[in-house]
Amino acid sequence: MKARLGGEEGKHKFVLKTPKGTRDYGPKQMAIRERVFIAIITCFKRHGAEVIDTPVFELKDFDIAGQFDPMIPDAECLKIVHEILSDLQLGDFLIKVNDRRILDGMFAVCGVPDSKFRTICSSVDKLDKMPWEEVRSEMVGEKGLSPEAADRIGEYVQLHGGMDLIEQLLQDPKLSQNKLAKEGLGDMKLLFEYLTLFGIAGKVSFDLSLARGLDYYTGVIYEAVLLQQENDHGEESVSVGSVAGGGRYDGLVGMFDPKGRKVPCVGVSIGIERIFSILEQRLEASEEKIRTTETQVLVASAQKKLLEERLKLISELWDAGIKAEVLYKKNPKLLNQLQYCEDTGIPLVAIVGEQELKDGVVKLRVVATREEVNIRRESLVEEIRRRTSQL
Amino acid sequence: MKARLGGEEGKHKFVLKTPKGTRDYGPKQMAIRERVFIAIITCFKRHGAEVIDTPVFELKDFDIAGQFDPMIPDAECLKIVHEILSDLQLGDFLIKVNDRRILDGMFAVCGVPDSKFRTICSSVDKLDKMPWEEVRSEMVGEKGLSPEAADRIGEYVQLHGGMDLIEQLLQDPKLSQNKLAKEGLGDMKLLFEYLTLFGIAGKVSFDLSLARGLDYYTGVIYEAVLLQQENDHGEESVSVGSVAGGGRYDGLVGMFDPKGRKVPCVGVSIGIERIFSILEQRLEASEEKIRTTETQVLVASAQKKLLEERLKLISELWDAGIKAEVLYKKNPKLLNQLQYCEDTGIPLVAIVGEQELKDGVVKLRVVATREEVNIRRESLVEEIRRRTSQL
Repeated sequence: MKARLGGEEGKHKFVLKTPKGTRDYGPKQMAIRERVFIAIITCFKRHGAEVIDTPVFELKDFDIAGQFDPMIPDAECLKIVHEILSDLQLGDFLIKVNDRRILDGMFAVCGVPDSKFRTICSSVDKLDKMPWEEVRSEMVGEKGLSPEAADRIGEYVQLHGGMDLIEQLLQDPKLSQNKLAKEGLGDMKLLFEYLTLFGIAGKVSFDLSLARGLDYYTGVIYEAVLLQQENDHGEESVSVGSVAGGGRYDGLVGMFDPKGRKVPCVGVSIGIERIFSILEQRLEASEEKIRTTETQVLVASAQKKLLEERLKLISELWDAGIKAEVLYKKNPKLLNQLQYCEDTGIPLVAIVGEQELKDGVVKLRVVATREEVNIRRESLVEEIRRRTSQL
Repeated sequence: MKARLGGEEGKHKFVLKTPKGTRDYGPKQMAIRERVFIAIITCFKRHGAEVIDTPVFELKDFDIAGQFDPMIPDAECLKIVHEILSDLQLGDFLIKVNDRRILDGMFAVCGVPDSKFRTICSSVDKLDKMPWEEVRSEMVGEKGLSPEAADRIGEYVQLHGGMDLIEQLLQDPKLSQNKLAKEGLGDMKLLFEYLTLFGIAGKVSFDLSLARGLDYYTGVIYEAVLLQQENDHGEESVSVGSVAGGGRYDGLVGMFDPKGRKVPCVGVSIGIERIFSILEQRLEASEEKIRTTETQVLVASAQKKLLEERLKLISELWDAGIKAEVLYKKNPKLLNQLQYCEDTGIPLVAIVGEQELKDGVVKLRVVATREEVNIRRESLVEEIRRRTSQL
């Protein structure tokens, strides 16, 4: 059990039981996490997701299993990544794609022996963190690849582009002779056609250096990275790390099937911990205030003896679905009520007073601008909705 | 890791990692659980809740801590219970309230020795499961209470009512002489005034038999029970179990304060496991189909070679926030597409065909009625929203 204690004006504290081993977070972290979860879950549902396991806080994978026509589910996974990253407003991003078959075909035509495919692939995977020269010397020095083969790989893995590059490689005298690479390039072309239909091809880069370490991928692989302008020079944007990734793994699910059948599968995994820390860092840097509640309006009074009227009004608001609070005092000072809004970020105050009650109105105050306007009581819910829908 | 395998037409299967010790649920159970969580979380947020711990699936307690004017937070807790149970449409319910001080005062004036307060209180707590005669014989036989004291208790604990009963007991020659009971009754009167302002006094019953086992309650206590008409006779509705409960525990939080200060606290706990099983049982009994996805529309075509057009349309719908699916086949049969909607409960089909494309329209089909209507493409999003908002 975790208890949080507040001072006299402290309101709405929670006492929640935590399952063992679960980390504790403060309300601001929780608010960020919740925003991210809602973006992800909303997107998954938009794409027909069905959830089969309980922990909502683990919901960050989207997988499509089944025998389907090529590249349609794969394109949908990339669309999902695009939607989530756009929605979270993490800044500029790029989704790199490649295909395990193109990688393997490339290694073959470059003269990498079959037995070295895996280890050379894991060297290529380091290209996002190390310059080519270092990766090359690892291949040749540590892994015993011939310098010629390494140089041939070097020419390919520095290529990235879109449909133009795919067409170019389909004409490549060596790659086009390799069955695997040709298959992979054909599917990559199809993928880019679908991405164009989805309007997201501009954010996707076919990148021959993308390898992804995991052995179980069998076809298309992808990784989304956030881009950052390089300091003041702004010459080229550099990646600041992967925030989502995935690919096709047609072999893996077969391991769980009683008859050992292979089930084609394509999936995407959202790097939520990474996204949380980016958003948290950014928040700290900006000194932006993050709200930990969603309260739309505080029901207040300027005079004494109006507790009953405040309770009657807030009850009407709650019943209409408005998120509302009231101070738990019989006769709170108006100043304290306004201060509470400042402290917690509540944007509106609904003030009841003798005169307002007589006139059948409520005084609605906008905390940020101090503007006050009398609203007829029967229009109050609509007015609060209207004014808080833009926030 | 849990994998779920589907047949050829199986779509959108999930591969999710589960933390150890977490139970697995099927998609229908998940759908019920999610509905309950959303109702609870929406209500908590409406009341200004701030969450300080992560596990969303544990979010079922609402507590208000701090020094406030009497009974205002207590009344809000009861309002919250009322809102959640109404929202979940669990059927008729009743919220029983009592006060630990009224119980203790009652024991005193009935002649229960101080040392027996606790054990007699736990006997009273059994009155919802046992008839008074059995409880009485436990008090007298097992716990050594005098038969006269037991009979005096018997007269009180069979009382329940509203403001009338509170007024009656405030005039009670014995109870009104007891300081604790008088305090408790005064606050109970205030509570009912606030509940009347909240419009929920009719669902709340002041019940002198409500004791609740937990020792740490210091003031008001409450418990919400679902009511069920007794079979065909319908004479009186009986309780079918508690689904929420709580009370004031002004001493407990002090244990966690470094200076040992007491922090007044009132809280409510929602019995989600109980609510889940009630809803699951009811669902099984009714044979109602429960949907496991929220997809609003399937994008389909009646002719071949329209995959690109389907993808273009679904992309427009996704970007407008519509929950949409498409079969991952190049040329699916219309019958299979309609069958998929029947199986998964998708209410609408947006059909593109050569003629519709020429005319700038989309054929919208209502799965349930088979009604088909041509909608101008630019109005499609609005039309889908309009037609699915009433579902």
